[in-house]
Amino acid sequence: MELHGKNIIGFTESAEGSNTLSSYNPNLGIDIDPAFTEATSNEVDRAMQLAADAFPAFRRISAPKRAHFLDVAADEIDALGDAITERAHSETGLPEARLNGERGRTVNQIRMFANLIREGSWVDARIDHAVPDRAPAPKPDTRLMLQPTGPVVVFGASNFPLAFSVAGGDTASALAAGCPVVVKAHRSHMGTSELVGRAVQKAAKATGMPDGVFSLLQGRGSSVGSALVQHPTATAVGFTGSHKGGRELFNQATARPTPIPVYAEMGSLNPVFVLPGALEHDGEAIARGLHGSVTLGVGQLCTHPCLVFGIEGDFFNALRNVLGDLFTETAPATMLNAGIRDTYAKGTQTVAAVAGVDLVARSSADPDPEKTQGAAHIFSTGVATFLNSPDLSEEVFGPSSVLVNCGSKADMEAAARKLDGHLTATLHGTDEDMAEHADLIAILEQKVGRLIFNGFPTGVEVCASMHHGGPYPATTDGRSTSVGTAAIFRFTRLVCYQDFPQGSLPDELKDANPRGILRIVNGSHTRDAS
Amino acid sequence: MELHGKNIIGFTESAEGSNTLSSYNPNLGIDIDPAFTEATSNEVDRAMQLAADAFPAFRRISAPKRAHFLDVAADEIDALGDAITERAHSETGLPEARLNGERGRTVNQIRMFANLIREGSWVDARIDHAVPDRAPAPKPDTRLMLQPTGPVVVFGASNFPLAFSVAGGDTASALAAGCPVVVKAHRSHMGTSELVGRAVQKAAKATGMPDGVFSLLQGRGSSVGSALVQHPTATAVGFTGSHKGGRELFNQATARPTPIPVYAEMGSLNPVFVLPGALEHDGEAIARGLHGSVTLGVGQLCTHPCLVFGIEGDFFNALRNVLGDLFTETAPATMLNAGIRDTYAKGTQTVAAVAGVDLVARSSADPDPEKTQGAAHIFSTGVATFLNSPDLSEEVFGPSSVLVNCGSKADMEAAARKLDGHLTATLHGTDEDMAEHADLIAILEQKVGRLIFNGFPTGVEVCASMHHGGPYPATTDGRSTSVGTAAIFRFTRLVCYQDFPQGSLPDELKDANPRGILRIVNGSHTRDAS
Repeated sequence: MELHGKNIIGFTESAEGSNTLSSYNPNLGIDIDPAFTEATSNEVDRAMQLAADAFPAFRRISAPKRAHFLDVAADEIDALGDAITERAHSETGLPEARLNGERGRTVNQIRMFANLIREGSWVDARIDHAVPDRAPAPKPDTRLMLQPTGPVVVFGASNFPLAFSVAGGDTASALAAGCPVVVKAHRSHMGTSELVGRAVQKAAKATGMPDGVFSLLQGRGSSVGSALVQHPTATAVGFTGSHKGGRELFNQATARPTPIPVYAEMGSLNPVFVLPGALEHDGEAIARGLHGSVTLGVGQLCTHPCLVFGIEGDFFNALRNVLGDLFTETAPATMLNAGIRDTYAKGTQTVAAVAGVDLVARSSADPDPEKTQGAAHIFSTGVATFLNSPDLSEEVFGPSSVLVNCGSKADMEAAARKLDGHLTATLHGTDEDMAEHADLIAILEQKVGRLIFNGFPTGVEVCASMHHGGPYPATTDGRSTSVGTAAIFRFTRLVCYQDFPQGSLPDELKDANPRGILRIVNGSHTRDAS
Repeated sequence: MELHGKNIIGFTESAEGSNTLSSYNPNLGIDIDPAFTEATSNEVDRAMQLAADAFPAFRRISAPKRAHFLDVAADEIDALGDAITERAHSETGLPEARLNGERGRTVNQIRMFANLIREGSWVDARIDHAVPDRAPAPKPDTRLMLQPTGPVVVFGASNFPLAFSVAGGDTASALAAGCPVVVKAHRSHMGTSELVGRAVQKAAKATGMPDGVFSLLQGRGSSVGSALVQHPTATAVGFTGSHKGGRELFNQATARPTPIPVYAEMGSLNPVFVLPGALEHDGEAIARGLHGSVTLGVGQLCTHPCLVFGIEGDFFNALRNVLGDLFTETAPATMLNAGIRDTYAKGTQTVAAVAGVDLVARSSADPDPEKTQGAAHIFSTGVATFLNSPDLSEEVFGPSSVLVNCGSKADMEAAARKLDGHLTATLHGTDEDMAEHADLIAILEQKVGRLIFNGFPTGVEVCASMHHGGPYPATTDGRSTSVGTAAIFRFTRLVCYQDFPQGSLPDELKDANPRGILRIVNGSHTRDAS
């Protein structure tokens, strides 16, 4: 399929502008064809206005029909097959197996939301019947459910060209909720974005969705991205990227005449605590697992562990030695783009320059700059240095991690208290360790979105019980998740109907319960008619 | 009970400052004893730090024990009996019957949240079991639930000295969720606030809650309020008041190094649409109901209707004439305080000065300035004037409303499209009217939080299916409600546990389901053990 390099505005293509951008092949270190035309402010306005115009029709389309649209979009993306893998590989340097897996995850995720809305109970429908003879005043009939907010702006992420980009979790959950979506493609993978965007566009046409339910614009964050966030018709924003970028969008969105929520996932150090029993009995396996987790995807995962805490002594030294060997043997690898590679190199230099931090090991081979490579690094320091060095609380996005030697359980708790908000925290321990460290767990529960036991934070399961999010600065909205079915709540608001005639109520709130959903009726959960 | 005039900081009283403030009796037009000592920045810091210190213990207290605390607080507030009614009457001018009713609503609301957390299913627990043999990677065991965010700052409201103040919905829902609360008392009813604050303090002590779970500070919004919102330990803010005040707090909260959510309810015009069938058959009853709703509580309710749309002609003229007579006969009445009375007088002057707006009627008697009175007003205008006069889209907080004559159904829809976000919209109609005006209803569904049929927006039912909130500028967070059980979601965030040992999981997520709550286990809703 030949790339057209244009913006997708609803059911049409548009390339009014004169600025063009190219994708970069990090494996080859060269720009690649075609040129993509940056959206103009007029095109931004058209896409957003079309989304606003589509909303009244889209929100009233029945959930089964919306689910069908999502399923067809998933089929169309899956049908891109090798074409999408090849393009994404050339634009990101990510291996083909990973990209095939990511395509599977992306389409499964879309189908998960289709199934969620087809089942329908997610709207949290509540019905309280009238009590006309209640004293001193009659109780009216009231019925409540979640409804979509309106057009949503989604930013593609650099590190997941499929699962967190054009048709990733934000887009899938917003469309499932009934919100039109306008995506700003990430500059690192514009061709991949176009291919996925065309698949969604095709599905929208084929399933009779209103024109404007989906658009995809190419361009820079500072121009196209800002204009989208500040457009009056936008009602919410989804973003995965740097702290600087996320906070800037948040500031723009909250300064609007009508502020809108920004769901920005911005970075996380994903601390790992290796408790004494596990360290003694399982140190080598933990070291191997940590190495795999730190270097997975060349460390370019939101959940890669940047900090590893353990009690100093022979067992932690042994773990450090195993890690040292593994990191030495790790070959430098191609990173997503030159900017990320440069920031990573700078980040490891900053860590290395902290007084009291030792480099345990790095890739023995030198990274090839022509292949946009980064070397793996493992550092070691003491808890006092960690507590007093703000540089060690900054994410280094790449295959690097820091071992922190703690003198005692109390040191570990002090380190945990010092943590900012993160996506995850991991504990390695025996059951006795866990009982012994209940206070540490309680501290971590307040710091992160997900706690992992005897595992590794990378690899985010997509399911109803997942939370991918966490307190600021991990995200700008610690209340909500970007992965799993609960992500749909981001793009919704409550609407209550008081004493409404049956014919004017949404199906979800009608007495007969035609959708057969689980509701709370007069305080009891039931699927019965009310 | 003698008022001490001090700040309540956890289990102690404190009055370090030198600034004092007095409450004002609007019925008598005089300041009343005692003097209340404004909290110093040191006291703000102590209250917030104590709340942060209380949080780790409070969040781990079992839900039944937290529910018991809430029930005892409700009992203590109820036991204030005539003392609270008398003080609130002197500080607000509200009639005793209304205040007794409001006390009942307040304690019922607290008990509703106690029952909600005692039952426990509100935490939205989700469990997906491990699938160790899944290919290509095993599925881990993941478990998700809502948990409290941390210390919450609550601002008392002027117009509901009990139900939206010290122990109002925000405080009750935050405590129920497991968040400590620091209240900034409203300056209009500092004595009422102290009495309620002491009741909550007493309940916290009696039920063994940690010191700092509740504090109450006196002072001005510009000093004490701002310091609370900007305190590093605050995790959320609840506010009911003016647009200016709410937006200012929102701006402060979003500009923090760590931004926090602000749930500010800021004003609403609560448009009423009288559809043709209802106007013809039921015009006089609708006019009487409207008059009652506009003048209830001297128009000082968030949901009082400021705009009434109808199709021009004999029937709408007849409705106007009935309203004219009713408003002429309405006696001027004492408003909450001098500031509100002055703002109301200015607001009606602004409406009257709009070219194309006619005064239909006002209270025939003059308001008595010594009794802080406001006169009732009813205005009339055409739809073109409404569409072109921004002054008519500003809330007038008091017993005033504007009739808008529409030439056609299309005019009504144009007016609806022009509306900002509001708390409510009301439709009066026959079933045929509703079928005929489906597009109008669809527009209104996007503009408000609650739609009322053949009723009036004042009188907000406290129940599971209520939504009191709406899109900006009605609130700063249109996703959530301040009334009803769903209000508890404001003060929560998701926490996920992956592969956690049973002993380290919260009770809500243990296999045995010891709390017997409804959970989603492997995709199915069940109260069974998992």
